[in-house]
Amino acid sequence: MSEQPGAADEIMDGVYRALRAHGYADVTMQDIADECSKSKSLLHYHYDTKEDLLVAFLDHVISDSERRIAAHADDPPVERLSGFIGWFVFEPEAIDREAFHIALLELRTQGPFNQPIREQLVRSDRLLRGTVVDILESGIEEGVFRDVDVEETAALLVATLDGARTRQITLSRGANAAGSPGMNGDRSDTDDSGRNGTGGSASGGTSGGDASGTGTLDAVDRPEPTYTRAVAEATLRRIVEPLLAEGVERPSLEAGIAAMTPVDEDENE
Amino acid sequence: MSEQPGAADEIMDGVYRALRAHGYADVTMQDIADECSKSKSLLHYHYDTKEDLLVAFLDHVISDSERRIAAHADDPPVERLSGFIGWFVFEPEAIDREAFHIALLELRTQGPFNQPIREQLVRSDRLLRGTVVDILESGIEEGVFRDVDVEETAALLVATLDGARTRQITLSRGANAAGSPGMNGDRSDTDDSGRNGTGGSASGGTSGGDASGTGTLDAVDRPEPTYTRAVAEATLRRIVEPLLAEGVERPSLEAGIAAMTPVDEDENE
Repeated sequence: MSEQPGAADEIMDGVYRALRAHGYADVTMQDIADECSKSKSLLHYHYDTKEDLLVAFLDHVISDSERRIAAHADDPPVERLSGFIGWFVFEPEAIDREAFHIALLELRTQGPFNQPIREQLVRSDRLLRGTVVDILESGIEEGVFRDVDVEETAALLVATLDGARTRQITLSRGANAAGSPGMNGDRSDTDDSGRNGTGGSASGGTSGGDASGTGTLDAVDRPEPTYTRAVAEATLRRIVEPLLAEGVERPSLEAGIAAMTPVDEDENE
Repeated sequence: MSEQPGAADEIMDGVYRALRAHGYADVTMQDIADECSKSKSLLHYHYDTKEDLLVAFLDHVISDSERRIAAHADDPPVERLSGFIGWFVFEPEAIDREAFHIALLELRTQGPFNQPIREQLVRSDRLLRGTVVDILESGIEEGVFRDVDVEETAALLVATLDGARTRQITLSRGANAAGSPGMNGDRSDTDDSGRNGTGGSASGGTSGGDASGTGTLDAVDRPEPTYTRAVAEATLRRIVEPLLAEGVERPSLEAGIAAMTPVDEDENE
């Protein structure tokens, strides 16, 4: 971007809000322009297509994660590992964060068909697994972790935490379905574009019923503890504790959650 | 369905093939009709909307999984557990299976907004976690597993295996993107419906470039071993082995893979 430094960030904040409200498949350049108070033609000046803008957004999100991870690079390895695990915990009230990650999951389903998206996903995977490898290698050197297979451990941890997140966000009633004011209409106005599985044919009744917020799945949708919290606790006890050297105490999940502010609950708000 | 018993299965097979070729967002009733040699009006006679048909398909897939799991209910618990883990291993050549699971992942992103889909996802989650709980409880009773927290272990295992699958399928070059004959066009003809992130605006160039199969990510896309195999091996060593009672041998992943024919590589072909 040749704009002043702030403009690119404002556009990225607009993408973040528009994705949360409309999802990946339905979001338009106009939605994004509305969310960042720019004109649609300005967006098109910088980004030819919605896809180009979304790839730039993925790049922005991953670069932000890189900076956050780098900021903790000198923390003690056990703290860094619990921070990494805590980063993936989605509290029950984190509705906006779930809505954002549902849109990201939609984007991820494009990976097999879209090379620029896939390149960003591969970069993100390397960042996540590389971070765990780095934490484990530092900890082994300092004598706080046993001499384990760091690549295997990294793949296991990343798969576990990502899987818990995917399950939590896909099994939950969404922010819009729950009838939060202003957002509900955004999602349910999009029946003609394939969202809600209509593909343009007559339907939408189910979506409307769903959006009324009178469903009976609330207790199932929001179990206590959440899927991510339950799996993060299990990860600390079952995967991390056996890694620790003799006499090193298992870190607490609460400290880990507090250590890393989620990327999507800070700068992007 | 009031049809003869075979007709419903033929339609479900058609949905399976059409989802693999077109993905969830783009698949049409006509695509499904073409794949099962039925008329579109016959499909609409039984299913009002594409969504209704896809919910019926999810129901069919989950019921099939229930039957497969039930068929192994009397196997020894350690074998059952390795079979469950092996079920999630996607071999590098399992391109069709990946294409199907990408479409399922797209369907899962509708969970927050669509109650009938979410109900099927919740049912699937209960089936998977309930199966692991049942296996562990049987094994604890028989003395082959230690007396562990079965609910925690089930959530951890399901999240881990699902996460590995999601990462493998989203990071891989897809069947169509790789230029397999006949499929390529199916995916790239759909630029106007939101696939490839275009949302109807001018684009498609990236998709076409991607589909040419000349990308440089092949080595990254198909790492050896695959993400699912690497994580399944790690799961057996890191999560399952510590569950085993004294003297019980860790099961092999190969035996587990052989034990359960994947739901999508047998009846649906």
